[in-house]
Amino acid sequence: MARVSQEHLDARRRQILEGAALCFARNGFHATSMQDVLKEVDLSAGAVYRYYSGKEELIGAIVVEVLETVRDTYERAALESPPPLPDVLIPRALAQLREVKPGRLDNGEWVFPRLMIQVWSETLRNDQLSALMTAGYDKVRVAWAKVVEGYKAAGLMHEDADADAMARTMIALAQGFAAQMAVFGAASPEILRDGLRALMSMGESPARP
Amino acid sequence: MARVSQEHLDARRRQILEGAALCFARNGFHATSMQDVLKEVDLSAGAVYRYYSGKEELIGAIVVEVLETVRDTYERAALESPPPLPDVLIPRALAQLREVKPGRLDNGEWVFPRLMIQVWSETLRNDQLSALMTAGYDKVRVAWAKVVEGYKAAGLMHEDADADAMARTMIALAQGFAAQMAVFGAASPEILRDGLRALMSMGESPARP
Repeated sequence: MARVSQEHLDARRRQILEGAALCFARNGFHATSMQDVLKEVDLSAGAVYRYYSGKEELIGAIVVEVLETVRDTYERAALESPPPLPDVLIPRALAQLREVKPGRLDNGEWVFPRLMIQVWSETLRNDQLSALMTAGYDKVRVAWAKVVEGYKAAGLMHEDADADAMARTMIALAQGFAAQMAVFGAASPEILRDGLRALMSMGESPARP
Repeated sequence: MARVSQEHLDARRRQILEGAALCFARNGFHATSMQDVLKEVDLSAGAVYRYYSGKEELIGAIVVEVLETVRDTYERAALESPPPLPDVLIPRALAQLREVKPGRLDNGEWVFPRLMIQVWSETLRNDQLSALMTAGYDKVRVAWAKVVEGYKAAGLMHEDADADAMARTMIALAQGFAAQMAVFGAASPEILRDGLRALMSMGESPARP
């Protein structure tokens, strides 16, 4: 048997995850069978099961890949001084996600927003997936909080601002924007950039104690 | 037959919607039957079908009720001068939603975040629901944009800030935060308030052209 290069293995793995992501985005996790995935990726059962034991492993690998991509964006941003401000950073995180998950649905829509909703929906009834999501999300929160510390170190934010609250708020923004893309149709990242700029231009609440 | 008061009719209607919301939040729209709803509200089929022809009408009524509540919050805020800033207004919108949809799941969790994810998931494959969601969302956007105009009139925001982008960004924030509550567990609105305050304290991006 010919030796198979690591590159080939990685490419095959990526091909399978892309196909599975398309299937899950289209019909949801529950209604997708391994047969659907095999058909989508156009590989034999043997070729696919060599990498993933079934649907659970597939969705788990997709969730880990997405959350690691997002975390990586924020980890790198925290190393810049100062880190890019949110109006630049959040659109960047979405752009990097688009590079890792470039798949498009039959109507041309980017696969990710719809996939995200389907994964969330499955998370509500799947404890294993829920644990995986929570662990990955916690790491994204920590990475975002490092960005906030970078803002503070550069004098861009009050020392006493709550870094975790800021992290969760920024993550909520990206999540909600992706949800809008899934539910209401494609939306340009410039909307988020301009909205964030408007918000940041408000300054502090005069009503603050 | 005794005359039935409008109050009684409204209370009955509310009872049915509350029960249906619980069922949809628990198991999703697809897996919920009208039998499940009848059991949950403890009413006869006749009593329920008098108000709603079936699941489609129930979920439609819930979506309209939620989006009208949210719109109402922002419509009222736009009448204040100046309107409350986002760190006050978005937690207020969540609090008003809690008054209209107070239901709790068996584990004590607030019903709304989970219901929202289930509705989004159903929206992906249900054109009628999708049209209803889009129409309601558009009205919420318009109401939020009026709030932004109020900020501008009060000198709290640049005249040239993009009101619709700001509206969509603020709605994304509330949506993403509710999604976090559904997927990662209950979270206090103070997180959102403190995160928004931190963000607003950053001022404009120095890198802006």
